[in-house]
Amino acid sequence: MTTLAAPVVPPDPDCVRETVDTLLNQFLDEQERSATEIPELSLFAGLLREFLAAGGKRIRPVLCVTGWHTVSAEPAPPLVWRLAASLELFHAFALIHDDIMDRSALRRGRPTAHRVLAALHRGHPDADNLGVNAAILLGDLALGWSYELLHSPPEPAPHQLAAIRPVLNALRTETLVGQYLDLAGTGRPTGDAATAWRIIRCKTAKYTIERPLQLGALLAGATPQQLQALSDYALPLGEAFQLRDDLLGAFGDRAHTGKSAIDDLLQGKHTVLLSTALQRATPTERDALQLLLARPHLGHGDAEAIRHILTTSGARREVEQMIAERLGQAAAALLPGTLRPSATAALRQLADAAAHRAL
Amino acid sequence: MTTLAAPVVPPDPDCVRETVDTLLNQFLDEQERSATEIPELSLFAGLLREFLAAGGKRIRPVLCVTGWHTVSAEPAPPLVWRLAASLELFHAFALIHDDIMDRSALRRGRPTAHRVLAALHRGHPDADNLGVNAAILLGDLALGWSYELLHSPPEPAPHQLAAIRPVLNALRTETLVGQYLDLAGTGRPTGDAATAWRIIRCKTAKYTIERPLQLGALLAGATPQQLQALSDYALPLGEAFQLRDDLLGAFGDRAHTGKSAIDDLLQGKHTVLLSTALQRATPTERDALQLLLARPHLGHGDAEAIRHILTTSGARREVEQMIAERLGQAAAALLPGTLRPSATAALRQLADAAAHRAL
Repeated sequence: MTTLAAPVVPPDPDCVRETVDTLLNQFLDEQERSATEIPELSLFAGLLREFLAAGGKRIRPVLCVTGWHTVSAEPAPPLVWRLAASLELFHAFALIHDDIMDRSALRRGRPTAHRVLAALHRGHPDADNLGVNAAILLGDLALGWSYELLHSPPEPAPHQLAAIRPVLNALRTETLVGQYLDLAGTGRPTGDAATAWRIIRCKTAKYTIERPLQLGALLAGATPQQLQALSDYALPLGEAFQLRDDLLGAFGDRAHTGKSAIDDLLQGKHTVLLSTALQRATPTERDALQLLLARPHLGHGDAEAIRHILTTSGARREVEQMIAERLGQAAAALLPGTLRPSATAALRQLADAAAHRAL
Repeated sequence: MTTLAAPVVPPDPDCVRETVDTLLNQFLDEQERSATEIPELSLFAGLLREFLAAGGKRIRPVLCVTGWHTVSAEPAPPLVWRLAASLELFHAFALIHDDIMDRSALRRGRPTAHRVLAALHRGHPDADNLGVNAAILLGDLALGWSYELLHSPPEPAPHQLAAIRPVLNALRTETLVGQYLDLAGTGRPTGDAATAWRIIRCKTAKYTIERPLQLGALLAGATPQQLQALSDYALPLGEAFQLRDDLLGAFGDRAHTGKSAIDDLLQGKHTVLLSTALQRATPTERDALQLLLARPHLGHGDAEAIRHILTTSGARREVEQMIAERLGQAAAALLPGTLRPSATAALRQLADAAAHRAL
């Protein structure tokens, strides 16, 4: 081991992606190799490998590693990288199950897992249902493997596990409850902004930004003050990120987002964008919007009509303002003193990138 | 701490059930108490509490604790009990997801989780789907909580985790792959006995009997010879147990099994019973059986016709013989010398109970 002369700067996001993808592929290779008695595991490991290779920004792993660097001047140790990779397997689980629940056909520009599995069983008398059921199992496996990867030998020390356990548990629970709120609200969006905000906080602000940052920071021995600074940055950034996603879901271009722009509208997701529109719209617009959202199938004309009301009601502009405000709050949380400057520079870049995602 | 004068005998199954249920209820209470910001967790914790209270023999916890006693003369320490309870939460996860995949209406004589959740959302425009989706999440939560319970403070020591990790990983993988094989074979049972046996081994013999025994034994420091003796007992017993279950699924009485006797037949599960019947039946019987199994809905007359062929083909009798053979093998694996006699007595009782389950 060499002692480093200067504090280490966080690796850039491309480097984190590459390292995490190497770990994920090694893990899946190992699963395939060890499964001589269970040939079906090759199928599942292969599907997960394709799912991961199809894209994804690895934002949770990047934030986990960056979280370490907000606290420590040392290079991130193997456990931080394993934890980062395990967050991406957890995310694969969440996406595979979400796509089943949302009955989505596309993810990252390719057929969703349940569609791929249905196609694999094309000759089966009940191929579509078998595809959904096998994808439930594939998601279950990914969830199990995210724990297995974190606990790969050598087992983490008890004090390391004790440090991250409450946040790992919270991340899982918040994500699942957020998805439940999302499902229960879908199909009947209302002006109830409070629920829309709870969904954003559970499903995005905490899950995508705050918890991964905290996990990396906790392994570096973060103080309560440092954890608070990370939350003060993460929560508004995560909210801004999801609000941007809602706008993309309504107005975005499929070539950019990799999913059908009409999907969110078609499902009548209970978003802040829609609840704002329902609050601000004239009674006539409100009635028209609720009728459109209740339709089982939306034509492109219907989608255009919804977009029109989102715009004329002022909801689109108001959500843009909410995004700008939150990005300002996130930037303000990175004032010097609490977190290491080399890492806050990386966090500032990330907020800038979130601010400029293409519509 | 007192030093015990005589080696401890394994607690009887009722005592294990009571202790494990206390741990499970404490864990769920704790989840509810800590969830002040997430009121929906009360709903999920409450549903799991009801699910567990509705029945179940706690066979995996009983075997985990008994596994400890096959090796150690000491009382089982808290970690063995936590592991035993976590196996029951894992089992709740597996059953909740299995019931979704099998579209079962009843479990333990009560509506399945997805039916309960659909009823809770009766006013929702898409209540049945919401019930299924929320039950996917409830299962995901139970899987996550099974790990959370195992890792409750104090964190297990690294050498303890390292001892059980490979078997915990195998248990999860085998169960999921077994369910996949079951799904892929359902709806088109054939004379292919090899696949039917693989399903039995993955889903029952290993998952229900071998792995729980090994887990308890590993925490007590089992030797490879002791693990082998446990497998030699567990695999035939587990096979016998599932073969009996297949017979109950075709011929059983709903009052005893808590599920509709027609369910397995209706779904055309690829069981050893059916593959044996398809092998042994006359060409006329085989055609009749395959036509009946392909029907989307089975009347009671159809079910009677299937039962008739299962009997006249000799399949029912042959499966009874397979059960008797395997119970003999399981008993023979408990010869004195390798495992502690007080625990092998308990294992012998368990095999006897399995042999005499009511039709």
